[in-house]
Amino acid sequence: MTEVRCSCITPENVLKASGHVDKFTDLMVKDEETGTCYRADHLLKDFCNEKLRKDLSISAEKAVELKHVLATLDDLSADELCAKIKEYGITAPDTKNPLSDPYPFNLMFQTSIGPSGLLSGYMRPETAQGIFVNFKKPYCVSSNKLPFAAAQIGQAFRNEISPRQGLLSAREFTLAQIEHFVDPEKKSHEKFSEVADLEVLMFPRERQMSGQSAIKTRLGEAVSMGTVNNETLGYFIGRAYLFLTRLGIDKDRLRFRQHLANEMAHYTVDCWDAEIECSYGWIECVGIVDRSAYDLRAHTEKSGVALVAHEKFAEPREVEKLAIAPNEKELGLAFKGNQRMVVESLEAMGEEEALHLKAALESKGEAEFLVCTMGKSVIIKDTMVKISKQKIKEHQRVFTPSVIEPSFGIGRIIYCLYEHSFYTRPSKAGDEQLKVFRFHPLVAPIKCTVFPLIQKSEYESVARRISKSLTAAGVSHKIDITGNSIGKKYARADELGVPFAITVDSQVEVTIRERDSRDQVRVSAWEAASVAKELIDGHRTWSDLTSASTMHDGKKFTSCFCGRY
Amino acid sequence: MTEVRCSCITPENVLKASGHVDKFTDLMVKDEETGTCYRADHLLKDFCNEKLRKDLSISAEKAVELKHVLATLDDLSADELCAKIKEYGITAPDTKNPLSDPYPFNLMFQTSIGPSGLLSGYMRPETAQGIFVNFKKPYCVSSNKLPFAAAQIGQAFRNEISPRQGLLSAREFTLAQIEHFVDPEKKSHEKFSEVADLEVLMFPRERQMSGQSAIKTRLGEAVSMGTVNNETLGYFIGRAYLFLTRLGIDKDRLRFRQHLANEMAHYTVDCWDAEIECSYGWIECVGIVDRSAYDLRAHTEKSGVALVAHEKFAEPREVEKLAIAPNEKELGLAFKGNQRMVVESLEAMGEEEALHLKAALESKGEAEFLVCTMGKSVIIKDTMVKISKQKIKEHQRVFTPSVIEPSFGIGRIIYCLYEHSFYTRPSKAGDEQLKVFRFHPLVAPIKCTVFPLIQKSEYESVARRISKSLTAAGVSHKIDITGNSIGKKYARADELGVPFAITVDSQVEVTIRERDSRDQVRVSAWEAASVAKELIDGHRTWSDLTSASTMHDGKKFTSCFCGRY
Repeated sequence: MTEVRCSCITPENVLKASGHVDKFTDLMVKDEETGTCYRADHLLKDFCNEKLRKDLSISAEKAVELKHVLATLDDLSADELCAKIKEYGITAPDTKNPLSDPYPFNLMFQTSIGPSGLLSGYMRPETAQGIFVNFKKPYCVSSNKLPFAAAQIGQAFRNEISPRQGLLSAREFTLAQIEHFVDPEKKSHEKFSEVADLEVLMFPRERQMSGQSAIKTRLGEAVSMGTVNNETLGYFIGRAYLFLTRLGIDKDRLRFRQHLANEMAHYTVDCWDAEIECSYGWIECVGIVDRSAYDLRAHTEKSGVALVAHEKFAEPREVEKLAIAPNEKELGLAFKGNQRMVVESLEAMGEEEALHLKAALESKGEAEFLVCTMGKSVIIKDTMVKISKQKIKEHQRVFTPSVIEPSFGIGRIIYCLYEHSFYTRPSKAGDEQLKVFRFHPLVAPIKCTVFPLIQKSEYESVARRISKSLTAAGVSHKIDITGNSIGKKYARADELGVPFAITVDSQVEVTIRERDSRDQVRVSAWEAASVAKELIDGHRTWSDLTSASTMHDGKKFTSCFCGRY
Repeated sequence: MTEVRCSCITPENVLKASGHVDKFTDLMVKDEETGTCYRADHLLKDFCNEKLRKDLSISAEKAVELKHVLATLDDLSADELCAKIKEYGITAPDTKNPLSDPYPFNLMFQTSIGPSGLLSGYMRPETAQGIFVNFKKPYCVSSNKLPFAAAQIGQAFRNEISPRQGLLSAREFTLAQIEHFVDPEKKSHEKFSEVADLEVLMFPRERQMSGQSAIKTRLGEAVSMGTVNNETLGYFIGRAYLFLTRLGIDKDRLRFRQHLANEMAHYTVDCWDAEIECSYGWIECVGIVDRSAYDLRAHTEKSGVALVAHEKFAEPREVEKLAIAPNEKELGLAFKGNQRMVVESLEAMGEEEALHLKAALESKGEAEFLVCTMGKSVIIKDTMVKISKQKIKEHQRVFTPSVIEPSFGIGRIIYCLYEHSFYTRPSKAGDEQLKVFRFHPLVAPIKCTVFPLIQKSEYESVARRISKSLTAAGVSHKIDITGNSIGKKYARADELGVPFAITVDSQVEVTIRERDSRDQVRVSAWEAASVAKELIDGHRTWSDLTSASTMHDGKKFTSCFCGRY
């Protein structure tokens, strides 16, 4: 995978080609008097939920209807939304004023590039488009061979009408996207066997439609039964599962939900969202989608630059094909300096377009022809290009790759991780509930704390020496030499999710305490930092360490329990 | 240091407070006929350089004048630039049309936040402001103690009038900024001694003014002589030096240039740029500046939120001070729900403002008073607040911290690193100059390549096993099993700056080759990956390895030379 970094500011024509300028919208209504804006579907959703929750007088049929509206909310057109808002008499929530009809509001932040004010641009609404338009570069880095992937982690920007739910729906957020390009005819994945035996909670289309719940499924089976369209999709579902659970997401509150047919764009082959359950419900945190060749084709069309892959044949193959032979001399006379652009456009025609042009030239002797790179149509005469069906030998296949796109919403994952990692337990005295984050050492922002048991200069200098070793080993840690009690220091560290604490109570030996078990182990002061480092890197487990004696670097290593704090 | 990530989209009032909305401009001229925009100083600079280079007829005085213009280019006001452009008869470079007078063009990308279109925002022109407005958070993380630092790596955006020189001046670029907050009275640094003995090429103000060149100086001396204003600035100069040279920047083409008095804003205490010499000249890549308390004060003033630090005294101190005692009852009657805002504004007054109000109340019985948080002035009567000089006991000092700000232009550093790392050497046959990047393993994007000497399935499977071990060890590498010659494979890897190549020519032993010396060492196939990892992490040096025998994990380790390729 090639990691890339593309610009956030994106020229309008790129997002015109991708469809974002025309279609990346939410439906908005305005308070007719104050002008305050609301998302139309939010108002309808809030109305239905409120009604169902508070109004005990509604009939059973009415309840079914409201639930149906909630379930199909994402599919409602502007007209349907408008009708529902009118039917239910929904007004502006703050003022009770009447509302405007819903109309589309583009969610991209617009700006102007350069000093002239003439070139419009947008902050990217996703990181993917930068990869598509630069397709040729990572393709070259991968020696012009499929499959290959480019990945990007960066900011994306969406001018939400009414951001809510904190990190779950912000106007600026971190997105990590992988664009994995494959031959459309070869969507198998050579590492699929590595994930085939994973049992994952899956929620396929059929089970959603029939009102069943998600079900544990072996990924190998999901692909072989055709539930998941292809191995590459299945592979990324498996990798997303491993990634999320390794971070600390609870595997029983993680499901992969397939998009319903009406949720997907026409070009989408299949789409699975990793949804994580938190206090806001099941939240879409990762989307894994097979977008077919849509994006590369869209940019090829608008830019006139062929974003295609080549497969060289071992032996040339004979095929019947349309041959397009531009007459360079005639074209040169007619178009002078623009000749090259016209020739390239003619050669880039698809079969259908070429047959169309051929027919027009044969019937009328000339035809209008759009040259994208010139931004206008020109008149092509029948002397300028010869289009014919020919048997030709092909040495390679030229085609537009399909793209499988896993997208990770980093903020949402982090938010869910907070919820899944949080718990409370009684303090030693039992008079207080102490808060703990059970962050895995991999994700804990602070991996280790170091503190003297009591304020004493000999202990402080040992603590400082250990801190220095941790810094040298690249371990993010905190040293705390305040006069707070050891209990308070532990409680603070637990609240920050620090996995290990080193407490100095002698110049020779120190204590390492594990956050969740609160077990403690004695190690020599000089090797405390390296033991902590091994625990944090996962090269040694806590249970290895807590067994009465452990072999360590060939040396007998003695540890003793000090109870719990 | 606390690493933070603030948003790129910034509300207008933040950048109004920082001064960017009013002052972050370049002077622009327009072609009066075509409307094409140019940076006024670029045109003047190009004119002077062209004249000096091509016009052999100019007098010695004229040459001196033009050189003086070049040297003072950054200081010219709009009027002075305008006068020079008129005096020299400079016209639009592409058309020779007359030019407009220079006028300021704001370099920020503007956008609109939210659906109403009423809230203006900008893409941040630097990452620092996000840290200033969130000052209280990292201050709290550092237990409300000074000094502490917050750091941010992220995109910054400047709508350059005419971007040029590739990575050196892009409209979107990666900036890494540290905001190190200190007590203005304590700018010493506890780790200064760690860098005091570094000898760094320094170019202080006086040497620039007197036409001398940069000079090697011990940092300790530079600080003690007062050349560098304080230890904290000196410490960061030392750390920037260590950082850049460790990346691979040539220490003899790296200098620290002090800003001249007229280059600095009035509030700047001292400023040093790390400049790196490349084919474009000496390029400013890092700026290290003591900005005093300017930024926090500016945001405190505009927002009404006190961004201050507290120092608790061991013993209370008696001082004479203005006491501001708002009469809550009177204020409540007069301002109802706004009472709190008025009270807070009164209490937040500086000494000067309070004395002013006191005088007005005494002479006129009432006075106008601006309440920032209400966005308007109110009338304060003498019954509403008592302002008096009193001897009071202070338990703490409240003050605005100073900030020392090292800013790293990542793109510029990377560009200079390319130039400093690039060299060529003759091919084995001597018929070609091969290109090499001497990237340090720390920065090389690919750390290692693995390839079979010839296409043979036994070698391939060994190569794949080594590749797998490297992946497990987290080493970025490439495996190349094409049929290209070994010479071609080495040349390709050298061109990408890959430090080490593992060549498989047996199932038992393999060769590791170092890029710059082209020396080769035999190691056993099963430990090739771990040896490469140690070399890359710097836990073992190449010269350790090339000595005839080396102790490794307590085992006798034999290596032999295979000459060079």
